[in-house]
Amino acid sequence: MRFSRGRNFLFRVPEGKELLGFINEFAKKNNVLIGTVSAIGSLRNPKIGYFDEEAGGYKVIELTGTYELVSLSGNISIKDGEPFAHIHVALGDSDGSLYGGHLVEGKVFVAEVFIQELLGEILERKPQENGLTLWDAEE
Amino acid sequence: MRFSRGRNFLFRVPEGKELLGFINEFAKKNNVLIGTVSAIGSLRNPKIGYFDEEAGGYKVIELTGTYELVSLSGNISIKDGEPFAHIHVALGDSDGSLYGGHLVEGKVFVAEVFIQELLGEILERKPQENGLTLWDAEE
Amino acid sequence: MRFSRGRNFLFRVPEGKELLGFINEFAKKNNVLIGTVSAIGSLRNPKIGYFDEEAGGYKVIELTGTYELVSLSGNISIKDGEPFAHIHVALGDSDGSLYGGHLVEGKVFVAEVFIQELLGEILERKPQENGLTLWDAEE
Repeated sequence: MRFSRGRNFLFRVPEGKELLGFINEFAKKNNVLIGTVSAIGSLRNPKIGYFDEEAGGYKVIELTGTYELVSLSGNISIKDGEPFAHIHVALGDSDGSLYGGHLVEGKVFVAEVFIQELLGEILERKPQENGLTLWDAEE
Repeated sequence: MRFSRGRNFLFRVPEGKELLGFINEFAKKNNVLIGTVSAIGSLRNPKIGYFDEEAGGYKVIELTGTYELVSLSGNISIKDGEPFAHIHVALGDSDGSLYGGHLVEGKVFVAEVFIQELLGEILERKPQENGLTLWDAEE
Repeated sequence: MRFSRGRNFLFRVPEGKELLGFINEFAKKNNVLIGTVSAIGSLRNPKIGYFDEEAGGYKVIELTGTYELVSLSGNISIKDGEPFAHIHVALGDSDGSLYGGHLVEGKVFVAEVFIQELLGEILERKPQENGLTLWDAEE
């Protein structure tokens, strides 16, 4: 689907906040219904998910300690009537090794977030048979 | 080079499609000649490349199974007279370990793609002595 | 903070340049005071940092050889009165294994960089007690 461009937000999330919840709250508060998200920073004890197709849900991997937030990439759309951020992250440990997946949660040490709002027809996530909630596919 | 901003596309690629081919076809169909691409999702049996300078070509690494598409980052420009996407990906396995490189191919389980079109003078890839096809460098 | 959109730059950095310094110089030369940065390519002997909170500074990890620049994500704001790029990278070796963190330096083999300028109130980094230089946090 095609969108026009809305507002641009670049900001730092306060230390101690849970990052995914903060981004969802930010989108609700500012009425960002569709958009893209990126960020860098550093997270404490992040939890990441790997979607297990057989189980129809996410296997959660709990990391311990502080990790560089090497990349954060995702989008905002509507789920259950509210703005919802779907985000994937890559996280680096003190040796530079990387871990990553679907962001389940992470406490912020530092997070510098960029959100670009998109304007247009609502993009809505709907439950699928496989356990995911997805937009209609573009053919 | 400096560009003005064109259209913005945010969409889901149907399950089973080959991601790189789909993005190239999307760019051709929509006449996106220059742009940036990002995405998240999940890919099956992705193949990634590492450019081997001595060999003058890509060493291809074939991964087996389903991987979280943790980041996808790249651009669209002109190669051989047609829109061409140059894309790098980071991929996570069920333990959260990451692998990555130049995207050679990957079958879509889920892919949520953002393309922003750029407008301006054509940016064209030309074959180099080292085996790569590159734009003229900015000095 | 909220910004309007400025210029868009998509360009290739010449082989042999140090990437972080080139981006900082590019921002100064073009007077990009606020913005976002992304890139893909390939770097030689990159150095990445992991912020060690106890030490109040970065632990530097020196990688040897040529790595695919799988993702580069960051922003430009003002530090000490000048444009300053804060950048994180994911780097892939010839087996597709990934390493990453805060970009300290890296010599360009190939780098295709996208900078989008943002316009608005100045976003300035100020020294914190923990050793980092950060913007004021958004509450």
